[in-house]
Amino acid sequence: MKALVERIRKEGRNLGRGILKVDGFINHQLDPVLTAEMGQEFVRRFAAAGVTGITKIITAEVSGIAPALTTAIALSVPVVYARKHRPITMPEGFYASQAPSHTKGGIVQLMVSPEYLLPSDRVLLIDDFLATGKTIHALAELIAECGATLCGIGCLVEKSFESGRTQLAHLNVPIVTLAIVDSMEGDAIVVRDPNEG
Amino acid sequence: MKALVERIRKEGRNLGRGILKVDGFINHQLDPVLTAEMGQEFVRRFAAAGVTGITKIITAEVSGIAPALTTAIALSVPVVYARKHRPITMPEGFYASQAPSHTKGGIVQLMVSPEYLLPSDRVLLIDDFLATGKTIHALAELIAECGATLCGIGCLVEKSFESGRTQLAHLNVPIVTLAIVDSMEGDAIVVRDPNEG
Repeated sequence: MKALVERIRKEGRNLGRGILKVDGFINHQLDPVLTAEMGQEFVRRFAAAGVTGITKIITAEVSGIAPALTTAIALSVPVVYARKHRPITMPEGFYASQAPSHTKGGIVQLMVSPEYLLPSDRVLLIDDFLATGKTIHALAELIAECGATLCGIGCLVEKSFESGRTQLAHLNVPIVTLAIVDSMEGDAIVVRDPNEG
Repeated sequence: MKALVERIRKEGRNLGRGILKVDGFINHQLDPVLTAEMGQEFVRRFAAAGVTGITKIITAEVSGIAPALTTAIALSVPVVYARKHRPITMPEGFYASQAPSHTKGGIVQLMVSPEYLLPSDRVLLIDDFLATGKTIHALAELIAECGATLCGIGCLVEKSFESGRTQLAHLNVPIVTLAIVDSMEGDAIVVRDPNEG
């Protein structure tokens, strides 16, 4: 997606150890126009990949919520965000899955209430980054635990050098990313539009 | 706002100790149509209150992000979500403020990078609940610390019996809420539309 690639080229910062800072438009501040367009682009790309009949979007708090919501608005289906800290409103019997945190260290638990993810659901999984694929994998496990059907995975930014795509190949669903970062060395961030060239 | 009031009447649950469960459409699952409409309603209500020239929305992760984003989309201004856990992408020199957590217990720290909240900003503060007003107060402190101007406060659900509105009166800005819960006793949740009679 051209607008996202250009934004990463302009504002993305390599903080070292594989960390790409995109706080100005994804992880701390959000651009309303870009965020809405990214949701619409996911819908177009999944339709082109033959993904149909989606009934729910799932993501993980915190940074997945914005792109998941704009995708949900474009598709007119609800979005469920997996919680990392169990609120007291979440009843016993929730589904849980674990993933390492890339930007905070340690292990995070992802929790979903069975009230909102049903065996009949056909689910799109949306998140901000596809890096090692471990958070996505944990969310896919939650979907399987609920008995729902995973139909596609969409991430804003893919870091191809962390090979998450390969790690998730066994899920056998379309993986759509809107910008692919192939390398980051010093100030040089090599990023491309997967829909071009 | 009629649609929100009706949804609370239909799906809201009193969990005791002042906790209103609205996980089906605010705190865990989001209804895309309702969430978009709530953002548009904030814009209409603040315009009616004479609030103009907004350049930024601020909210707190996690549950404030969705209504803040749809408000930002309706206004075409960026949204900044204060972080509760410092990501490694946030540089030293961030602004911080503390608030007690209503649904998780303990104290949470709210952090904003000075990169995204500027002294020239005219800010709308959007969150899911107005209860004791302490989270809103902490966000208002962050805005003041940045030197930005707070122009209005918008919350989806106000629990009038926790008197947050009174606590925030000294900020001297319009406070807009879309549904007001006046009491919760057993299964009886008394909720009204502040825009009606």
